[in-house]
Amino acid sequence: MTVEKIKLAQGAGGELMDQLIKNKILKYLVEDESAEVSLSMLDDAAVIDDIVFSTDSHTVQPIIFPGGDVGSLAVSGTINDVAVMGAKPIALSAGFIVEEGLSVETFEKIVKSMSKCAKDAGVPIITGDTKVVEKGAVQEFMINTSGIGKRTSLLDTNIEVVKRYRVFKKRWLLDSNLAKGDKIILSGNIGEHGIALLSFREGYGFETTIKSDVAPVNALMEKALSVGGVVSAKDPTRGGLANTINEFSEKSNIGVVLKEESIPIPDGVRSACDMLGIDPLEIGNEGKVVLGVVEDKADEVLAAIKQHPLGKNVAIIGEITDKIKGVVLETTVGGKRNLHKPLGDPVPRIC
Amino acid sequence: MTVEKIKLAQGAGGELMDQLIKNKILKYLVEDESAEVSLSMLDDAAVIDDIVFSTDSHTVQPIIFPGGDVGSLAVSGTINDVAVMGAKPIALSAGFIVEEGLSVETFEKIVKSMSKCAKDAGVPIITGDTKVVEKGAVQEFMINTSGIGKRTSLLDTNIEVVKRYRVFKKRWLLDSNLAKGDKIILSGNIGEHGIALLSFREGYGFETTIKSDVAPVNALMEKALSVGGVVSAKDPTRGGLANTINEFSEKSNIGVVLKEESIPIPDGVRSACDMLGIDPLEIGNEGKVVLGVVEDKADEVLAAIKQHPLGKNVAIIGEITDKIKGVVLETTVGGKRNLHKPLGDPVPRIC
Repeated sequence: MTVEKIKLAQGAGGELMDQLIKNKILKYLVEDESAEVSLSMLDDAAVIDDIVFSTDSHTVQPIIFPGGDVGSLAVSGTINDVAVMGAKPIALSAGFIVEEGLSVETFEKIVKSMSKCAKDAGVPIITGDTKVVEKGAVQEFMINTSGIGKRTSLLDTNIEVVKRYRVFKKRWLLDSNLAKGDKIILSGNIGEHGIALLSFREGYGFETTIKSDVAPVNALMEKALSVGGVVSAKDPTRGGLANTINEFSEKSNIGVVLKEESIPIPDGVRSACDMLGIDPLEIGNEGKVVLGVVEDKADEVLAAIKQHPLGKNVAIIGEITDKIKGVVLETTVGGKRNLHKPLGDPVPRIC
Repeated sequence: MTVEKIKLAQGAGGELMDQLIKNKILKYLVEDESAEVSLSMLDDAAVIDDIVFSTDSHTVQPIIFPGGDVGSLAVSGTINDVAVMGAKPIALSAGFIVEEGLSVETFEKIVKSMSKCAKDAGVPIITGDTKVVEKGAVQEFMINTSGIGKRTSLLDTNIEVVKRYRVFKKRWLLDSNLAKGDKIILSGNIGEHGIALLSFREGYGFETTIKSDVAPVNALMEKALSVGGVVSAKDPTRGGLANTINEFSEKSNIGVVLKEESIPIPDGVRSACDMLGIDPLEIGNEGKVVLGVVEDKADEVLAAIKQHPLGKNVAIIGEITDKIKGVVLETTVGGKRNLHKPLGDPVPRIC
């Protein structure tokens, strides 16, 4: 008899991870009716008593990389998961697992980076926990951040705008809210985080000046919400844009057509991907958001996001349709291909 | 030049960890005035907008031990940190870091155990995150749980009772709330969790039938609050009872006298401690609570806790005094000794 074992690809944010979560976790965790947005909805965060609640453990390697570190990543990642629900992130927790022997200088550098990132985003770290484990029990430094967020009038007025254009009964920006005609907006360049990490790892044999895009998107989300008309939002982390759009399609049970030429991919990412045989649409990002917006408000939301420093390359990259199922990519050469959820992430340990 | 490195004992819940937190973490994390109970108060949880928020990463070894596992420990630990603030825990998050190659059977067993523990305690796990890392990057399975809790009328009426007996301006059960005359109540036996873990580890050469006390204490806390008169509560985890009582003494800036003979220590724990040269007062517990109660209500609170299955060995173990500084233990042989905060935990990786 062979013993079934957990595989690396099961933690990579794609199909295989979906199966692990559905068959080995959700099956056992008791569904609770008190949560308005619950675990089984597998959205970016849950909601209970109008409190938005999310968690992420960050196991990135290397722990300091071009453009950021595990500290800024942890803060940004959790702020983003709360913000894309349409909530205002109000507080973070920080759970440290440190390997004995980590240099105090590195530890301090990362704590300072967390602090700066949280302060810049206006979301305080209010509670924490520190574990030090013996050498070999954890690789260097892993950080869990959980976050809570509140409903604000910004979300309410955003939803009022949506209701001017179509029937809308949801109270939060869920992956399942999309409907025919909605436009898909991507806030900026994709692929930078994963490529920056790879370039810093040994054995890949390429150099690049690309930096991780890691950043909190809560202020950018506020810009979008203040226009109104946003129905869904998601940060394209593990599994990249391909995973995010497929989540939208599956949960909203509707087709999505993306125009490849409109997706902003920096040249450096494109050439690195060509060399490595990686699809940039499958690479995780840590400072981007993908929005679903009612058609009539898409241009205005785009313009508002463009005002924010993180949104200067914002683009409308596709739209929702009931003519197809799943996700279709209209390629730059005039063809069409189905865009599937990746099996796993092409770049491991990115978050 | 030698490079300063993080040491194992700095994560053990005693003096050395205090220094790490104060000098290398709090120094950099920006204090935020929006939190009513903030990070720098180093209480069991923080409070912002009347939401109680706490986090804990669980790195226990072995991951399955007599009486529990990392799953039940993670659920109980976080419920307890929220409950001892006087709040009602309403939801948990679960952040999994899994080592590639962990048997799926073990993984499922632990997820089921979490689910059962959360269900029994009436606190749903509503959001989660799963990371799988390559072999050697984490030891087996580590779990972060964060929790949120709400203020209920039970806490308000408890505080009304306190105010009948003395001036009391606090809104939560903080370590800093104790005053002269308050009694210290311990909800049951100490030392079982640490000894159960040690007995299961290789190389200690002793056997015991002792099981971990891991359990959620939220229902027991409700019993105590429903009587009223509780001013402080804390779960004596890392650093054990010695650490908890010293935290009370330091933060309330008042003396504590404990009576050794009244502290419930099972014979098996006592003999294992004698053999290993460990002080049972310094061993972490995972299903106990230490309460500060106004003198006139102590007997009633004790009686209420005794009704709960987890409270059958509840005892009044000491009282608050302004005649001394720090913590004094009146020993069974009639002597007195100062009880200090342990430097580190005598049993590593207990939580």
